[in-house]
Amino acid sequence: MGENISTKGKPIRCKAAVSRAPIAPLVMEEIMVAPPMPREVRIKVICSSLCHTDIGLWVLKDLPGIYPRVLGHEAIGVVESVGEGVHEVAVGDTVIPTFVSDCGECDGCRSKKSNICTKLPFKITPYMPRYDQGTRFTSLNGETIYHTMCVSSFSEYTVVDVAHVTKVDPSISPSRACLLSCGISTGVGAAWKIANVEEGSTVVIFGLGSIGIAVAEGARLRGASRIIGVDLNSKKFEMGKMFGVTDFVDGGKCGDKSVSQVINEMTGGGADYCFECIGLPSMVHEAYSCCRNGWGKTVIIGVAKPGSELGLNYHDILDCGGKSIMGCIFGGVKAKTDIPILLQRYLNKELRLDQFVTHEIQFDDINKAFDLLLTGESLRCVIWMDK
Amino acid sequence: MGENISTKGKPIRCKAAVSRAPIAPLVMEEIMVAPPMPREVRIKVICSSLCHTDIGLWVLKDLPGIYPRVLGHEAIGVVESVGEGVHEVAVGDTVIPTFVSDCGECDGCRSKKSNICTKLPFKITPYMPRYDQGTRFTSLNGETIYHTMCVSSFSEYTVVDVAHVTKVDPSISPSRACLLSCGISTGVGAAWKIANVEEGSTVVIFGLGSIGIAVAEGARLRGASRIIGVDLNSKKFEMGKMFGVTDFVDGGKCGDKSVSQVINEMTGGGADYCFECIGLPSMVHEAYSCCRNGWGKTVIIGVAKPGSELGLNYHDILDCGGKSIMGCIFGGVKAKTDIPILLQRYLNKELRLDQFVTHEIQFDDINKAFDLLLTGESLRCVIWMDK
Ligand SMILES: [Zn+2]
Ligand SMILES: [Zn+2]
Ligand SMILES: [Zn+2]
Ligand SMILES: [Zn+2]
Repeated sequence: MGENISTKGKPIRCKAAVSRAPIAPLVMEEIMVAPPMPREVRIKVICSSLCHTDIGLWVLKDLPGIYPRVLGHEAIGVVESVGEGVHEVAVGDTVIPTFVSDCGECDGCRSKKSNICTKLPFKITPYMPRYDQGTRFTSLNGETIYHTMCVSSFSEYTVVDVAHVTKVDPSISPSRACLLSCGISTGVGAAWKIANVEEGSTVVIFGLGSIGIAVAEGARLRGASRIIGVDLNSKKFEMGKMFGVTDFVDGGKCGDKSVSQVINEMTGGGADYCFECIGLPSMVHEAYSCCRNGWGKTVIIGVAKPGSELGLNYHDILDCGGKSIMGCIFGGVKAKTDIPILLQRYLNKELRLDQFVTHEIQFDDINKAFDLLLTGESLRCVIWMDK
Repeated sequence: MGENISTKGKPIRCKAAVSRAPIAPLVMEEIMVAPPMPREVRIKVICSSLCHTDIGLWVLKDLPGIYPRVLGHEAIGVVESVGEGVHEVAVGDTVIPTFVSDCGECDGCRSKKSNICTKLPFKITPYMPRYDQGTRFTSLNGETIYHTMCVSSFSEYTVVDVAHVTKVDPSISPSRACLLSCGISTGVGAAWKIANVEEGSTVVIFGLGSIGIAVAEGARLRGASRIIGVDLNSKKFEMGKMFGVTDFVDGGKCGDKSVSQVINEMTGGGADYCFECIGLPSMVHEAYSCCRNGWGKTVIIGVAKPGSELGLNYHDILDCGGKSIMGCIFGGVKAKTDIPILLQRYLNKELRLDQFVTHEIQFDDINKAFDLLLTGESLRCVIWMDK
């Protein structure tokens, strides 16, 4: 508590890994973290894990690429201090920050059917969501440092809007809990909250990266009886098997057939649910084409280039009678309601998180986490703040 | 019964309205109707109503336009004789033929979730669905006359596959029951079986023709609290009000706003369900754009030109988190299960059918029905076979 009392209301000088140029290694620097404004929370980060979205942002030359900034959005930490009007969490609480908000007040947040906050809607902003062009980071010489996805956890301290914070049981393993801050919730949630996978159903997952594998885990939890993974790398099937993937289709080895033709044959007319976890319009077509007419659901999770046409024909949709296609943000997970449920299921040994953590490193080695994810060696690399 | 005994197994000579050229008035002729083949049923038509799809087919120069043929696919009749292996219906039964099949054997027909028959899938064929290139109609000089949509009810007698026939209570009013053979089932079903409209929800209907009005009727039955109709003809709002339409947006009078902008403002962020009943890709966009992010469902009912691009952007779908888009065939109605349910709801005075029948004419005047529908004067014109 001594530290909290001494820092409350004052800027904190701490270590951060600053992204100063596209694709350049992060630079370990000391920065100043301002105190939280009203409805904000300053968090001492315990650990982060690296998500592909950070890599997607890290490479950008133009907006939403902006420099210098602090990346990192899968994390867990402890509340160091709170701004005015924050009653939901208090100093010392363990919290998971999330890039999606859950304000609890808007139509979307009040509905059980949606995780889309209309008050603080998701956008890749370099600022605090409630304060136009406000940042809480500066370099020691006063230069503005930008935020990323409302979290910026690659700093010993960060400031997050209270709508972007979920309080969790402090006894939970931080390196497991942080995974629920983005990727694993997204995949598990896509199967659970968006597709609402039914027991005994058949699921196809395009792309067996960590999100795809999290979809498999979600589908397995929902009782899917057949989970078909599609990837160009057959090694991923070995990993997938650990998470309930039962069949594998090597997208590069379908001969003169398309992947969807192969899967339509395997399933006798298409799967009940297809998930696109790659981010390619052509793969969305394949996914939709091997999804069962009448009731199949195709869920897009992968992020494509802005402006990408989907290229679906009018009759592709009309003629498939009741087969639907939809997207998802954060897997439809309502942060403050659903993250605690997922953590409980982890504690009940139902949801598997341990196997996602393939690597753990110290903060100073953060650039290794980028290498491991870029080469496909890691599912999740947890980055521990120096203790 | 005398007639049945004398005609069973033999061709029947009877009157038909034959479509001999695109957009040309139907020609009253005597034709020969062959006896039913195995799994087929020969029906004495009681009455038909004219659906827009007949007009869509009537104007076609090229395939699936084909001449001469017998149009008509919304009908009711009495079984005159049955082919081998038909046990489901017997001579004298009152039946509703449908352009969709319900074979009862395939995955789709056995599932409660789908009305898509995979054994005899819907296609606009001029032949009997189970017999390649087979027709049951010939002119008196032996010329082949083609079928339409597996029904061809603009003939005193027609032959229909048993998978395309639903047995109904003979006491039902034929001019009401025939409406459930296509259009009204499609609209009501889209709200009921495809969208599964929830009580208290907000619905938008693009196009207040008979299908759109049937969607309104379906949404009203499901307890929607607000039903917004969109049309270019404000007179249609008066008609719509009778079926539960509560608000009207004149698509031509939105000033510098798009229809979807107007509706997003009216609804504070979009409707729960949007139905496109026109058949224009641009209107699908509008419908999807004023459908609620997170949980909205956009249902395409209108038929566009083959090959029409939908032009949806990848992120249009991804970023709307859980908002879905889907098509429907016959409103998701499973003919043999759901038509009797709809008829019972009509008898219970829940489902309104009477108001759809704006005109009734005799068979000899059938070309009037085309005029009435083309000018927008009729919702449904019932064509009675001469008694
Ligand atoms: Zn909200
Ligand atoms: Zn992420
Ligand atoms: Zn029709
Ligand atoms: Zn079938």
